[in-house]
Amino acid sequence: AGDAAAGKAKSATCAACHGANGKAMIPNYPNLAGQNAAYLESSLKAYKNKERSGGMAALMAPQAAMLSDADIANLAAYYSSL
Amino acid sequence: AGDAAAGKAKSATCAACHGANGKAMIPNYPNLAGQNAAYLESSLKAYKNKERSGGMAALMAPQAAMLSDADIANLAAYYSSL
Repeated sequence: AGDAAAGKAKSATCAACHGANGKAMIPNYPNLAGQNAAYLESSLKAYKNKERSGGMAALMAPQAAMLSDADIANLAAYYSSL
Repeated sequence: AGDAAAGKAKSATCAACHGANGKAMIPNYPNLAGQNAAYLESSLKAYKNKERSGGMAALMAPQAAMLSDADIANLAAYYSSL
């Protein structure tokens, strides 16, 4: 499983859209707080692997592309812990 | 916006994976409770339009395909209200 502290350190960019506490201010962005870690990893990898093209994928794919698998596991651990 | 009561009536199938209260028992399925309605609509439409192929898309696309836009709006209203 990921390291939530490392995930928190990595989450500054995410917070811009998903909120400092994982609650998105913008309604078509998802809340991440308390989401299942395995689902968060699956979603981030789907964006990274360009397996999602609907909704905000155009915005998310470049973000996910910059993340390593460790970053993804850490971010998932962090947000699921909120 | 959708009708949460109509969404609740429609949610029996969803509950099988996403939990009776929108909290998924299975970690690679997302919790839906308290998620942003506009995001839920965007996700369901992305599955319906086959714009998602990663993760559980193979399971979700046929489910979403059976939903009308009104169903989608109602389910989004319901789950965001939990």
